[in-house]
Amino acid sequence: MKLATLKGAGRDGQLVVVSRDLSKAVAVPQVAATLQAALDDWSRIAPKLAEVAAALEQGSAKDAFAFDPVQAMAPLPRAYHWVDGSAYVNHVELVRKARGAQMPESFWTDPLVYQGGSDDFLGARQDVPLPSEEHGIDLEGEVAIITDDVPMGTTRAAALGHIKLIMLVNDWSLRNLIPGELAKGFGFYQSKPATAFSPVAVTPDELGAAWSEGKVHLPLVVHINGQPFGKPNAGVDMTFDFARLVEHITLTRNARAGTVLGSGTISNYDRSLGSACIAERRTLEQIEQGKPVTPFLKFGDSVRIEMFDDAGRSIFGAIDQKVVRA
Amino acid sequence: MKLATLKGAGRDGQLVVVSRDLSKAVAVPQVAATLQAALDDWSRIAPKLAEVAAALEQGSAKDAFAFDPVQAMAPLPRAYHWVDGSAYVNHVELVRKARGAQMPESFWTDPLVYQGGSDDFLGARQDVPLPSEEHGIDLEGEVAIITDDVPMGTTRAAALGHIKLIMLVNDWSLRNLIPGELAKGFGFYQSKPATAFSPVAVTPDELGAAWSEGKVHLPLVVHINGQPFGKPNAGVDMTFDFARLVEHITLTRNARAGTVLGSGTISNYDRSLGSACIAERRTLEQIEQGKPVTPFLKFGDSVRIEMFDDAGRSIFGAIDQKVVRA
Repeated sequence: MKLATLKGAGRDGQLVVVSRDLSKAVAVPQVAATLQAALDDWSRIAPKLAEVAAALEQGSAKDAFAFDPVQAMAPLPRAYHWVDGSAYVNHVELVRKARGAQMPESFWTDPLVYQGGSDDFLGARQDVPLPSEEHGIDLEGEVAIITDDVPMGTTRAAALGHIKLIMLVNDWSLRNLIPGELAKGFGFYQSKPATAFSPVAVTPDELGAAWSEGKVHLPLVVHINGQPFGKPNAGVDMTFDFARLVEHITLTRNARAGTVLGSGTISNYDRSLGSACIAERRTLEQIEQGKPVTPFLKFGDSVRIEMFDDAGRSIFGAIDQKVVRA
Repeated sequence: MKLATLKGAGRDGQLVVVSRDLSKAVAVPQVAATLQAALDDWSRIAPKLAEVAAALEQGSAKDAFAFDPVQAMAPLPRAYHWVDGSAYVNHVELVRKARGAQMPESFWTDPLVYQGGSDDFLGARQDVPLPSEEHGIDLEGEVAIITDDVPMGTTRAAALGHIKLIMLVNDWSLRNLIPGELAKGFGFYQSKPATAFSPVAVTPDELGAAWSEGKVHLPLVVHINGQPFGKPNAGVDMTFDFARLVEHITLTRNARAGTVLGSGTISNYDRSLGSACIAERRTLEQIEQGKPVTPFLKFGDSVRIEMFDDAGRSIFGAIDQKVVRA
């Protein structure tokens, strides 16, 4: 099934079930008022949502209406836990290579994650207000999962069953703030502004065979200002699958229901597929041409991120946003 | 006024108003079911909670009952944003000195913060389940504030008015996991397990003159296994006050209602006052005796953190927890 959150009375919006083709939606206040409420009691709530989804597909859902992604908030408009991996290690290797730095061998076996701001997620069509172009505004196209309660010490084998929903992410980044923050040693904070999510989150079964071994085996299609920018495959060159990432984040703590876990910028060794962030393209330009050419984003620029099934149908709806001055 | 959250039907517990002397409480479902709900609409809700608090002090509150801190969850049992500073820069300087590293001058002017896990906060009397003593289990005694909605670009001058509640923190840390994580460059994750908070959060006015210029001018009293360990003053040697920290965290993003912002381990240049974490004491031992002597914590060890007013009354109640094997 597919779920979305529409703007509503409260900060957490209103949970709706969306049809497979993203054309229709139906509110489910009798089942769960918000997606967080559904996740808090997922094993009991999910079957009821699935019943509504089935009725919607059959055309028998009462009070169905046209689904408008412009009205969608992030599926979780705010969350208690947003942790983003860097699972495409070839991307990390590449960026390090460009600045002449060695990457430790352990990066191939020990996942890299950081915890991001989850109190103020952006909807898929919301403008992205940022204070300055000087900060080096960049996208990061990713896939993310949402879990139920995952206890401390969960193994990779047990982790897969905790993955309840999948969505797309634009992990907006401010590149020129990153070197200073990383030099301080405490990781990202100011360099990671509000993150955006696809209009719709889907259960893994919606992906069919494209969901296997904790990876989404489909290209992520990125456009900047309407021009194709990249379409790396999220299932290729993902060093750490989502189950391994879940294992990593629960070594010393529980991950509670509604944990959002990102893949990190999708990146393939096949450079002909383009990139899911400008920083990577600039790095390739640096290596191939001696200097970066592609500029970071300016106010007014737009970024579209989408993923299609084998029949060309949009799975999650598009993240399609414009950067604006805050 | 003083607020607490008691274990209740849901994950977010039940908001109660607590008497100034921490002896009595009264539930306020008619005002706000949870502390997050109160913070989401603070300007409207706070005056109503203050009315209840006044009635409780006067002995006229209906259905008041004895307040039991054992029944208290963290004031926010889960939060959308937990960001911890490192505002006592002399502590950072000391730790670096012990390992022969220079501290950049910018650390005196540019705050250091990291974002921690907020989906699974611990109540003040809950056991602290951890997987291994080998991880180097340590406390970090701190003060934290809770904000309402703070817009991007808030200045230090404007920040003070957004500080709505104050509480105590034990930012549990796993010291032996920190070097590896910091070397990876993305900051803390596995090295920061679930964080614990005092039974009660208080409005700044409850501190009287002890709350000034965005600092709490009182000693934080730390005991380990019933023995005094440290009582550094939270208002002394705090390089960045809470208003400055709020300014820092809103440079590129909004901080939404219920943001929890910590001071970092309290540390004074006057070493006779002891420390609020074992790592600092070990660092001093390293410098003075050539090697660290005090061990990190073992399963069964307990840590008590409390703060008293000038008349010796506990302000927030005590964080008093035992470390146990997960």
